[in-house]
Amino acid sequence: MSSPTPQPAKLLVKRQFYTFAEPPQTMQLDSGAQLGPITLAYETLGKLNQERSNAVLILHAFSGDSHVAGYLTQEDTRPGWWDSMVGPGKAIDTNIYFVVCINILGSCAGSTGPASINPATGDFWALTFPMVTIGDMVRAQKHLIDHLGITKLLSLVGGSVGGMQVLQWCVDYPHMVRSAIPLATTSRHSAQAIAFNEVARQAIMADPAWNMGDYYNGPGPTHGLAVARMIGHVTYLSDEAMREKFGRRLHTGSLSFNFSGDFQVESYLHHQGKKFVDRFDANSLLYITKAADYFDLEREGGNLLINPDLAAVSFLVISFSSDWLYPTYQSKNIVSALKKNGSDVSFCEIDAQWGHDAFLLPNARLHGLISGFLARMRHEHSIQ
Amino acid sequence: MSSPTPQPAKLLVKRQFYTFAEPPQTMQLDSGAQLGPITLAYETLGKLNQERSNAVLILHAFSGDSHVAGYLTQEDTRPGWWDSMVGPGKAIDTNIYFVVCINILGSCAGSTGPASINPATGDFWALTFPMVTIGDMVRAQKHLIDHLGITKLLSLVGGSVGGMQVLQWCVDYPHMVRSAIPLATTSRHSAQAIAFNEVARQAIMADPAWNMGDYYNGPGPTHGLAVARMIGHVTYLSDEAMREKFGRRLHTGSLSFNFSGDFQVESYLHHQGKKFVDRFDANSLLYITKAADYFDLEREGGNLLINPDLAAVSFLVISFSSDWLYPTYQSKNIVSALKKNGSDVSFCEIDAQWGHDAFLLPNARLHGLISGFLARMRHEHSIQ
Repeated sequence: MSSPTPQPAKLLVKRQFYTFAEPPQTMQLDSGAQLGPITLAYETLGKLNQERSNAVLILHAFSGDSHVAGYLTQEDTRPGWWDSMVGPGKAIDTNIYFVVCINILGSCAGSTGPASINPATGDFWALTFPMVTIGDMVRAQKHLIDHLGITKLLSLVGGSVGGMQVLQWCVDYPHMVRSAIPLATTSRHSAQAIAFNEVARQAIMADPAWNMGDYYNGPGPTHGLAVARMIGHVTYLSDEAMREKFGRRLHTGSLSFNFSGDFQVESYLHHQGKKFVDRFDANSLLYITKAADYFDLEREGGNLLINPDLAAVSFLVISFSSDWLYPTYQSKNIVSALKKNGSDVSFCEIDAQWGHDAFLLPNARLHGLISGFLARMRHEHSIQ
Repeated sequence: MSSPTPQPAKLLVKRQFYTFAEPPQTMQLDSGAQLGPITLAYETLGKLNQERSNAVLILHAFSGDSHVAGYLTQEDTRPGWWDSMVGPGKAIDTNIYFVVCINILGSCAGSTGPASINPATGDFWALTFPMVTIGDMVRAQKHLIDHLGITKLLSLVGGSVGGMQVLQWCVDYPHMVRSAIPLATTSRHSAQAIAFNEVARQAIMADPAWNMGDYYNGPGPTHGLAVARMIGHVTYLSDEAMREKFGRRLHTGSLSFNFSGDFQVESYLHHQGKKFVDRFDANSLLYITKAADYFDLEREGGNLLINPDLAAVSFLVISFSSDWLYPTYQSKNIVSALKKNGSDVSFCEIDAQWGHDAFLLPNARLHGLISGFLARMRHEHSIQ
């Protein structure tokens, strides 16, 4: 009898919390409001080297969390959301880099957001939570990075709303950044992207159970939130991806001639909507989509990416051919602005059929580009 | 003193009704169900010639009605939905052609649909209305065309869901059709198009006021229907169209930092949603989107457009470059199938930035192509 194949040891990570801006101190927000206290949930992988020069900050997308890779418990069956990219021996190699991932301000996975308790009132923030911007999210992250004793990040990596944070970090704290990898993102949220977000918000706010955001003692706007998520998922895929993945295949053997959902693409959306309701806060969706909509580095005729302070930052900009939420031309806009600084800017459009979702999926080309770029950064800055 | 410029006389049209399939007779539907009585609302413009050979049937899109052009009353301020295309001296010239436009089965603008009374029960059909297909819609139209004494249509013209009806007519009644102009349409509803429709349906069905379709004694699912329409409008425009039309322009002077809607694109969607609620029935949206989703002329490996009976029909297939709901490749699929019949098939992709909506908007190129094609048909068939 052969013994069972030994399971590889699970990479265990621990969710940590950092609280700052404790009253009477607060953090000033872009809206003019003051917010405090602020707690950020975060996870780290790998080891910060003695020179504190090997830190890679990973910025998550709209519905992500700090749990980027590995497992939270020995019993966990699902690893973090970017486990294909991050871990020992992977593209972002935690044997080499000290990886930090922080749940964004306004979210609902441990960091302060509308579903948190406002200690001043003892009640949920709900819609009394102030509007936050991508700039505010980054400002809060900077407090944590300072707290970790890191003065220069080797790299920043993030896709989608995470990519917006990457760019905002470079604009606001260029001297703290050696390199940056914005993926599948934009420097300016388009009218179409705003439109999709607004329809998702309207779906939530149309649900009577939303109750002007005050639903934390009940089930909440589960129907509206599911519809909002379904809208999102249509934008994360693409015409081609949906054709490949589902085509017109039926969920059951034949047409139902009723409204239960005949096609596999419908079951997929129902499933995604249902799953999301169990893990995400509807008000957080409202706040974070709004932050994305407000994101615009080209406002008032200028372009904040054109800045001599950014000349020393190296960039790897990546788009995906079938991403129609943040299409390649938007990445090219980022590239042409950055090139005006004389920066070291690499750009690649990866030919992938999975739409916007492609940045999250295992992809040898993507892994190779990122690991190669990080190795070059390490080499150029003589980092052990 | 100069006298006021005389107003051109308004082209007045009259909505008419035709009822058939009266019990004990019924019409058999694709689902196997029987339906009757069936009333169709329709309008005609121009005059049927003595040979009854100058009839052009216009098929409307999902939310259209029989009121294709002209005015219903002298006081009317808004003309029909395709008034730029249809009328005396226009591309579809009602001085030459006898134009018929029929509200589709399942709709809510005079034809039998879920908001009609089922005479057998004296109550609204609501969800007891049987599911209808594009084939059923066309079968019902055929009854009316027979009733009008027309045995051969000079042409069929329609965009979007109207284009599906054009193709279905050709497949089901090829000997009644001399020519056909399918615009901005598909022979096979794609997974992405199904996905958008399903999200719209879910938005309606998530509204508690939908009440399983039984809402005709109250205000109905106004919130859900508005969200469904907003989803539709995002698909009718395009990234480029939205950028041109709205960009990131604000509705008011500055960011609100609340959820009231900051951007003009948001106000546009709110307006479209609100307007639709006043004119359209939520259950009709469910039924008609489902009919579109079921539409597939390429089912079971065959292609119903490949048929020697279609060889005698002339086609003008038109797509629009920025239409991503029914992209050009889908029109090209129609063209290559039709060419296998040895048919006279012309194809044109019109370069237009207005997305799917382009087929409804005034466009000199579109008008020229259609009027030229119709003139050729008239000439080839020696029609006075």
